[in-house]
Amino acid sequence: MPPETRGPLRLDAAAGDFAERFTALVEARREADDDVSRDVAAILADVRVRGDAAVAERTARFDRHDLDATGWRIERAACDAALAALDPALRTALELAATRIRAYHESQRPADRDTIDGAGVRLGARWLPVAAAGLYVPGGRAAYPSSLLMNAIPAKVAGVERLAMVTPTPDGVINPLVLAAAALAGVDEIWRIGGAQAVAALAYGTARIAPVDVIVGPGNGWVAEAKRQLYGRVGIDMVAGPSEIVVVADAGNDPAWIAADLLSQAEHDPTSQSILFTDDQGFADAVAAAVETQLAALATGATARASWQANGAIIRVATLADAIPLCDRLAPEHLELAVADPDPLFARVRHAGSVFLGRHTPEAVGDYVAGPNHVLPTGRRARFASGLSVLDFMKRTSFLACDAASIQRIGPAAVALAEAEGLPAHARSVALRLDPTA
Amino acid sequence: MPPETRGPLRLDAAAGDFAERFTALVEARREADDDVSRDVAAILADVRVRGDAAVAERTARFDRHDLDATGWRIERAACDAALAALDPALRTALELAATRIRAYHESQRPADRDTIDGAGVRLGARWLPVAAAGLYVPGGRAAYPSSLLMNAIPAKVAGVERLAMVTPTPDGVINPLVLAAAALAGVDEIWRIGGAQAVAALAYGTARIAPVDVIVGPGNGWVAEAKRQLYGRVGIDMVAGPSEIVVVADAGNDPAWIAADLLSQAEHDPTSQSILFTDDQGFADAVAAAVETQLAALATGATARASWQANGAIIRVATLADAIPLCDRLAPEHLELAVADPDPLFARVRHAGSVFLGRHTPEAVGDYVAGPNHVLPTGRRARFASGLSVLDFMKRTSFLACDAASIQRIGPAAVALAEAEGLPAHARSVALRLDPTA
Repeated sequence: MPPETRGPLRLDAAAGDFAERFTALVEARREADDDVSRDVAAILADVRVRGDAAVAERTARFDRHDLDATGWRIERAACDAALAALDPALRTALELAATRIRAYHESQRPADRDTIDGAGVRLGARWLPVAAAGLYVPGGRAAYPSSLLMNAIPAKVAGVERLAMVTPTPDGVINPLVLAAAALAGVDEIWRIGGAQAVAALAYGTARIAPVDVIVGPGNGWVAEAKRQLYGRVGIDMVAGPSEIVVVADAGNDPAWIAADLLSQAEHDPTSQSILFTDDQGFADAVAAAVETQLAALATGATARASWQANGAIIRVATLADAIPLCDRLAPEHLELAVADPDPLFARVRHAGSVFLGRHTPEAVGDYVAGPNHVLPTGRRARFASGLSVLDFMKRTSFLACDAASIQRIGPAAVALAEAEGLPAHARSVALRLDPTA
Repeated sequence: MPPETRGPLRLDAAAGDFAERFTALVEARREADDDVSRDVAAILADVRVRGDAAVAERTARFDRHDLDATGWRIERAACDAALAALDPALRTALELAATRIRAYHESQRPADRDTIDGAGVRLGARWLPVAAAGLYVPGGRAAYPSSLLMNAIPAKVAGVERLAMVTPTPDGVINPLVLAAAALAGVDEIWRIGGAQAVAALAYGTARIAPVDVIVGPGNGWVAEAKRQLYGRVGIDMVAGPSEIVVVADAGNDPAWIAADLLSQAEHDPTSQSILFTDDQGFADAVAAAVETQLAALATGATARASWQANGAIIRVATLADAIPLCDRLAPEHLELAVADPDPLFARVRHAGSVFLGRHTPEAVGDYVAGPNHVLPTGRRARFASGLSVLDFMKRTSFLACDAASIQRIGPAAVALAEAEGLPAHARSVALRLDPTA
């Protein structure tokens, strides 16, 4: 049938082929398999060797402006001016978002540790921020000030002294809302460069741009692949894929609310995914109808429709509790539990990036102002990964101290193990402290 | 001059060319640039498609045994038998190590959070273990029971229910000490497979081997590259390079002790690195002489000598405090502060994997029995990375809940920002909760 009359997928957990069809849904590949890895490797190598010249050439080609003419950097004054010129209601909203994001992330600061144990050994761990972090902010359509806040504020809360942002400015143009957000978040440097070349400049450093230790922020396939290839030389936030939401909802919800929640993911990109689990067939039909109604009036309807038809799904389960193990298999980025009493369901959830509890908590409130980070693991990565946090901008140094007495208590075991492992210098370095004549 | 008469590098911070020579030392590349990435990609693709058959063929070729004849798994009973047969002193040592490692890592368990803020919004974070972790244990020379404990115990402390270990058994042979350590650590499955094919089997799963969520543990270039390529599909511990130690020592130390500490890294591998900072030229010469004396009697002397000559360095500084910013540029895996009062120096250290305080704390005691993890960032990665911890086997789910009142307080700002970002379905999903007639 023609694309415009296709799905969303409709599944019923009671159907005989459900296990098979649900597994196909779980394993469906939505991530672009762009074969950009060789291109990106060449860009990284070129920037590593030729530095700023390599960056400027690609900026001229792809963003159509001459950095030496337009300027490599956007100065703080321009950001302050953008903030000052902002519509007051929007400024209030941005400030509320920044304040709440900061408050949430301040509670993530890890505690140091410094204790002496029963053997008299001093043991501890000390957390410190990385010295410098790089932040990629996409240009054009996906230039979201909320995303800038979500990436920059945790770095600043961590105590990162130098936060260097890169953002492409196609034809020299930049979104003033992004500059205003940069001012609010306390970004230290802004470079008007983008693409894999900007990521390379941050990682390797150039004559103009000092290298950073961690690179975060969303980007296109080239940016993502550049980060992946540089992982290990610098820290990165994560490998990100298309956005997704799973909504678990009973018939007590207004179908229009749930439809809007499903569409709030679908409007991001045709590869986004929205899935509804419900125990009520009539409610499922009502939501499906509400989606169609809302799509007709939505400015982002073309994108949202493409996503909903290609990747959307409505799944009927006998009870909502049955949905939870299925959600765990999807390990969704966002999970709404739109029921009157969500805690019993939430207690059973094991794998989700962020959970939105109850009927009055649309996922979008978390995208902007609730406080928790909206940079979350996608593509089933919530099985092992967490949202962006202050910890991504810090590192832990463990430490220990023995004295002449405590090394006698634990040293002999170290000598025995080192000898058993065939590492005599290890053994000797301990044995000398036990008996200097050894 | 012939290789055997080459130095360690000797530098003096007072020399005119010091900055340049020290930078060369910092930037010297010790990591093998094995061009294995295409080989590894082919192995991963093959295991993904053909599963166990692809694994068995490579095991027959590289480890020279037929898995269907020797058995794919090593049963728990074999591990228990190995533990029971262990030399009693060695068993006591291994048990002390396991107990202390467990105690240290138990203190790393993160705290959950569930609060209601001033706006009436419930905000929280919940940590849960990954469902399954894979542990790579090298065969042959580098089959270290201490490494098994350091990788397995944090997973079990995190609460990982299924810890699947892979280890190659060349010619069918396995080190009983490793089996004993597996019994002590509570490893749930052991597969006698290795190489990139074993990593692929853990990541993708096969008919025999269920997939895991996180893969940790040391391995050769193929294993490391396999983990790097699979990063994002599974979590991995880190990109690891050659081991390294920096010792900051004054003339109050016994030169033989410091020489032993330097050699304890050098004996690992010719690519290992040992660097001494001292403020006393006579002490520097005494340590250099002690290294030569100890090398002559060391069973691992050939490796240690190769490392010391190629990568070792003795650097004289005017004061030991001057050494700290230089150490930070090296961001070493291990840092010994071998002075009477190490805390003032330690307070200034920013980048190091693990720090060993005072004259009686040889790094090797941390390799085995102190408690902190010995899996640490190498190759300057302590700028942004931390040692292995319980957190590597857990993930955090953020959550939030608004009610009908609190969404009225923060929702309007979300609507304003969503509209400014051109995401009307986001705005609508919130606006409907503010005014159901919207």
